[in-house]
Amino acid sequence: MIKVGIIGSTGYAGGELVRILAGHKNAEIKWFGSRSYINEKYADVYRNMFQIVDAVCMDDNMEELATQVDVIFTATPQGLCASLVNENILSQTKIIDLSADFRLKDVSVYEQWYKITHQAQQFIEEAVYGLCEVNREDVKKARLVANPGCYTTCSILTAYPLVKERLIDMSTLIIDAKSGTSGAGRGAKLPNLFCEVNENIKAYGVASHRHTPEIEEQLGYAIGEKVVLNFTPHLVPMNRGILATEYAKLTKHVTWEEVKAVYDKYYAGEKFIRVLNEGVCPETKWVEGSNYVDIGFTIDPRTNRIIMMGAIDNLVKGAAGQAVQNMNLMFGEKESEGLELVPMFP
Amino acid sequence: MIKVGIIGSTGYAGGELVRILAGHKNAEIKWFGSRSYINEKYADVYRNMFQIVDAVCMDDNMEELATQVDVIFTATPQGLCASLVNENILSQTKIIDLSADFRLKDVSVYEQWYKITHQAQQFIEEAVYGLCEVNREDVKKARLVANPGCYTTCSILTAYPLVKERLIDMSTLIIDAKSGTSGAGRGAKLPNLFCEVNENIKAYGVASHRHTPEIEEQLGYAIGEKVVLNFTPHLVPMNRGILATEYAKLTKHVTWEEVKAVYDKYYAGEKFIRVLNEGVCPETKWVEGSNYVDIGFTIDPRTNRIIMMGAIDNLVKGAAGQAVQNMNLMFGEKESEGLELVPMFP
Amino acid sequence: MIKVGIIGSTGYAGGELVRILAGHKNAEIKWFGSRSYINEKYADVYRNMFQIVDAVCMDDNMEELATQVDVIFTATPQGLCASLVNENILSQTKIIDLSADFRLKDVSVYEQWYKITHQAQQFIEEAVYGLCEVNREDVKKARLVANPGCYTTCSILTAYPLVKERLIDMSTLIIDAKSGTSGAGRGAKLPNLFCEVNENIKAYGVASHRHTPEIEEQLGYAIGEKVVLNFTPHLVPMNRGILATEYAKLTKHVTWEEVKAVYDKYYAGEKFIRVLNEGVCPETKWVEGSNYVDIGFTIDPRTNRIIMMGAIDNLVKGAAGQAVQNMNLMFGEKESEGLELVPMFP
Amino acid sequence: MIKVGIIGSTGYAGGELVRILAGHKNAEIKWFGSRSYINEKYADVYRNMFQIVDAVCMDDNMEELATQVDVIFTATPQGLCASLVNENILSQTKIIDLSADFRLKDVSVYEQWYKITHQAQQFIEEAVYGLCEVNREDVKKARLVANPGCYTTCSILTAYPLVKERLIDMSTLIIDAKSGTSGAGRGAKLPNLFCEVNENIKAYGVASHRHTPEIEEQLGYAIGEKVVLNFTPHLVPMNRGILATEYAKLTKHVTWEEVKAVYDKYYAGEKFIRVLNEGVCPETKWVEGSNYVDIGFTIDPRTNRIIMMGAIDNLVKGAAGQAVQNMNLMFGEKESEGLELVPMFP
Repeated sequence: MIKVGIIGSTGYAGGELVRILAGHKNAEIKWFGSRSYINEKYADVYRNMFQIVDAVCMDDNMEELATQVDVIFTATPQGLCASLVNENILSQTKIIDLSADFRLKDVSVYEQWYKITHQAQQFIEEAVYGLCEVNREDVKKARLVANPGCYTTCSILTAYPLVKERLIDMSTLIIDAKSGTSGAGRGAKLPNLFCEVNENIKAYGVASHRHTPEIEEQLGYAIGEKVVLNFTPHLVPMNRGILATEYAKLTKHVTWEEVKAVYDKYYAGEKFIRVLNEGVCPETKWVEGSNYVDIGFTIDPRTNRIIMMGAIDNLVKGAAGQAVQNMNLMFGEKESEGLELVPMFP
Repeated sequence: MIKVGIIGSTGYAGGELVRILAGHKNAEIKWFGSRSYINEKYADVYRNMFQIVDAVCMDDNMEELATQVDVIFTATPQGLCASLVNENILSQTKIIDLSADFRLKDVSVYEQWYKITHQAQQFIEEAVYGLCEVNREDVKKARLVANPGCYTTCSILTAYPLVKERLIDMSTLIIDAKSGTSGAGRGAKLPNLFCEVNENIKAYGVASHRHTPEIEEQLGYAIGEKVVLNFTPHLVPMNRGILATEYAKLTKHVTWEEVKAVYDKYYAGEKFIRVLNEGVCPETKWVEGSNYVDIGFTIDPRTNRIIMMGAIDNLVKGAAGQAVQNMNLMFGEKESEGLELVPMFP
Repeated sequence: MIKVGIIGSTGYAGGELVRILAGHKNAEIKWFGSRSYINEKYADVYRNMFQIVDAVCMDDNMEELATQVDVIFTATPQGLCASLVNENILSQTKIIDLSADFRLKDVSVYEQWYKITHQAQQFIEEAVYGLCEVNREDVKKARLVANPGCYTTCSILTAYPLVKERLIDMSTLIIDAKSGTSGAGRGAKLPNLFCEVNENIKAYGVASHRHTPEIEEQLGYAIGEKVVLNFTPHLVPMNRGILATEYAKLTKHVTWEEVKAVYDKYYAGEKFIRVLNEGVCPETKWVEGSNYVDIGFTIDPRTNRIIMMGAIDNLVKGAAGQAVQNMNLMFGEKESEGLELVPMFP
Repeated sequence: MIKVGIIGSTGYAGGELVRILAGHKNAEIKWFGSRSYINEKYADVYRNMFQIVDAVCMDDNMEELATQVDVIFTATPQGLCASLVNENILSQTKIIDLSADFRLKDVSVYEQWYKITHQAQQFIEEAVYGLCEVNREDVKKARLVANPGCYTTCSILTAYPLVKERLIDMSTLIIDAKSGTSGAGRGAKLPNLFCEVNENIKAYGVASHRHTPEIEEQLGYAIGEKVVLNFTPHLVPMNRGILATEYAKLTKHVTWEEVKAVYDKYYAGEKFIRVLNEGVCPETKWVEGSNYVDIGFTIDPRTNRIIMMGAIDNLVKGAAGQAVQNMNLMFGEKESEGLELVPMFP
């Protein structure tokens, strides 16, 4: 039985970790960390857990936690994990960080986009970027996993095989992404009020969203050169789901079947990636509550562009689900353990 | 392994049966009946099931089906199950009917409220009303189970212990219920269009909704006398969930703790019924995707009334979940098998 | 031209005042008060007003304001208006208070339900309860109008003629109300976040909501005796709209037409009250953005109850619209000036 | 007083025409055409119009209608207007066609994208494309106006000044658009059901949506050469609103202020176009219910792209509002008459 600690268990991603781990056969949460609700019953904060979770919220003491659990999930604001982690802790426990602290290998890029001084630079090199389908073998051996961002997971996986096979001109790649509101977190902020979000759609963080360098870095590894692209997130009046619509010029003439074969080359054995049939567009609702990535694409001969579309549940494959998938890899569990969640419709 | 057939598998309740049974260890769906989509792939109708369900939709041939499966779920319009069922079928297989055909013992009441001539009156007496927490022992022995209505399940269970213990004056009982839109089914009807439902709330079927006699009959059995009450459903702009707010005069002075003890007397051992702490009101979101019934109540000393509130997911405890719970009872499975679904939030 | 000042112009009710007054021929806003946004451009807070309103937000200085405007709207938290008003101010300007400070004639009831010490008790007697259709003549002569609460407006007007004509047994009256989320205000509070409200419905303030004594007092005046009733508000995932479903025993046998005649006796000449045809239930969407109250009712011969239903837009007839209607009466304007808003659908 | 006839008055665009014209000082609707609801009271179909509109729905007899009214709005499916119009009709009345029948000058493009044989090709040349801000003078003299599509209006106006001034490389222009569900019309179709749209986002009509050639043709006129681009619409769970996010390479180095000056050159005098301040992104909610187009943009020096964003209410500026604006131009009315609608928030 894997003993699990969560720091930040009362955010939306933290709550989703608790939901998913409740169905995991070989994991048990030993520590429900939540700075904001210390000593309150977890089920008083998340009432869905009434009579399921009996625990009380604990503080963020990572040193203490490291002595008690096999793995710590940090579902916390940027900077917190880096400020707490040290060699002593990592020698006792594994860490899966759901924040951005260890996602970017170039610390100057991190500090520039996040406006934070990185407090644990010595671990950046060691940290494994936990995009399971891409870095599976490295994840298995990791002590410290940087769990990818929600937009990033969806954006990268949607384009990855085509990038890898140099089917698209990277200088033309544009990612227009749409997210449900849980991605904004559970903080009590005016822009996230029901009446501000409902019946509304907007772009935000245009040309400045922090997931941009993360996408660029990872796609850069795939193709072996520096990538610069446009990424534009939008806020959609729904709780869950990310849809990424991606545009790029094709580098050569290809048919739908040829592109499908390229996707299959990378994803045919991937349980959580579903490449849809021709003419089918992914919809976020079809993956809600599950760890799936649904991918579809259309070739436009008029413009010689391909339009790739990917859909995930931002709290599952975009956060807690992928974190558990990483945990399974790190501990030799079946990769899908606890994650065989059937999407809920409607 | 229980072999399952579903007639009406492409309605919302049918789809939910498929979702839930996908996680059931000892059941396997052998027949995805759907008159509207015969020969189409099930996963083309419900894309959440892509790469999960490989089957093709079949017709409604209950005779044939009876020879192939151990249990048939009918998630079909009123009248269909009664028009198909016969002794030959029931001698070969069990039936769990999610329609109203066998819920009411008085056929004249059925025909009056549903405006349908009942075509299988000979099975009304035999049919067991499948409200598991109330009729568990009878369900275990049944060949034909009438799965309760969604509003009914929520309305009855919220009040049942107080009715049974004669704590409330039945002549004063009023049930004001609110439902998500999946309760209206997947038919392409103008009133169910997004733009008609969104940003809107209305009552409908006032003093004439068909779940009224069902609630009256069952609460009548509980108290041993004829019950007549007001039940008013409302349509809420959300996919899932029913909230029932119930008002009644108390027959004697009681404290919150005393009422809680009455609930506990009936529900303390019930896995799927959660009586909330004092001051907590149930919310449909806290049970979404699960088989739970959340119940709360407030005593108003100013009016000597009690306000009881119950919340369920209309597609789970209000339909498919309860149907699977009934199946588990009928086949000697663990009652909660396949139903240990943690509510999804947000 | 009526010179208008608003204190609390950046709340949702304040914003709606600005929207409505923008279309009023004889009124001009001179002061956009907003403690939270002093010196910020109003159109930076409410971007719908970009290039429509050029003003900057001002503080809450009611003394100064009184010298500049003909009428002050206070769309502020409970207690603020009472803490600022005095004879000097009222001798210079009129006040329409959208808070509850002057709604209840019995100060002890106010202090008990609102947990605030009333700081201007000397004006309670003078204040006119601004339910225009009921108190029109008094409003015309008032210096200080207490603008009714949103739930209250809807609840009272839906039942008023039947109460007045003693058609219903007041001891049996139960009001089950449902509101959109703008009624909760624009404060950045966790329970009002999109993800907490969306796909959810709950009751709140059960047997304790502050609009209860206001409804009781006003209906008490109508019938000439003390009224005690149950009022239960619910939060609905939509921006605007209140639906009140009201239940009561009839005191005598009446037909639909007879009850309709009673409504017509009071409302036939009322522009903003629409009593719907037989069989039609009001829906909040049909009044959205307008000052209408839509009323429907059903008689249930089985229980001898009448079910009355009323729908309003909580920000218009439930707040800003009624406030402008009051202003029109106080200044001899056409009562509907600025309020001939056609409901927006969908 | 302009006498108005509407064919298709019970669709969402038709209903919005009725709402807007109810506030127009010099126009009166004489004919509420609706093939589906002949002889039914209009206010029974759109209950928001109860006690506002007393008329009964009429058939589609354009010949008869032409003798009775000064202008006919056709808010009907593609092909209908072209099948009814003739010289006799146009000699008696003006027509504003909200369908696509006369939007495209190249009939082969129309027939290819719409799969309909055009039945009134003789009027294509004469028809004026009613994008008021671009073709104002031609509209004033027109007998037959082709009212632009919703996506088209938003997409063109957002980019128009930059196209006209050759600031962007047209071969790189990509339009990613998002629409509320009222754009799909009031037909009772499964994909538009509440439960299918709510909590969901998807692209549709990828590389094949019919508004593509309309955008291409109009932007082609602006720049004087053939334009081919990608346009991708998405369905968003909200009633109203279109947001277009547009990407293009800049043809030269420009500052935000320089681009703003280009917008101002074309739009400074335009009442209904609001170019937002630097750093502000348009949101559909800020224009809801109004005829405004809100435009914002960001220059990304990293990629040398500009990201332009435009927001409209699809039923107002995207349909009925622009149609009334055209009518005002055609009849010498003040262009904004009936259209001084303040956006409703929230």
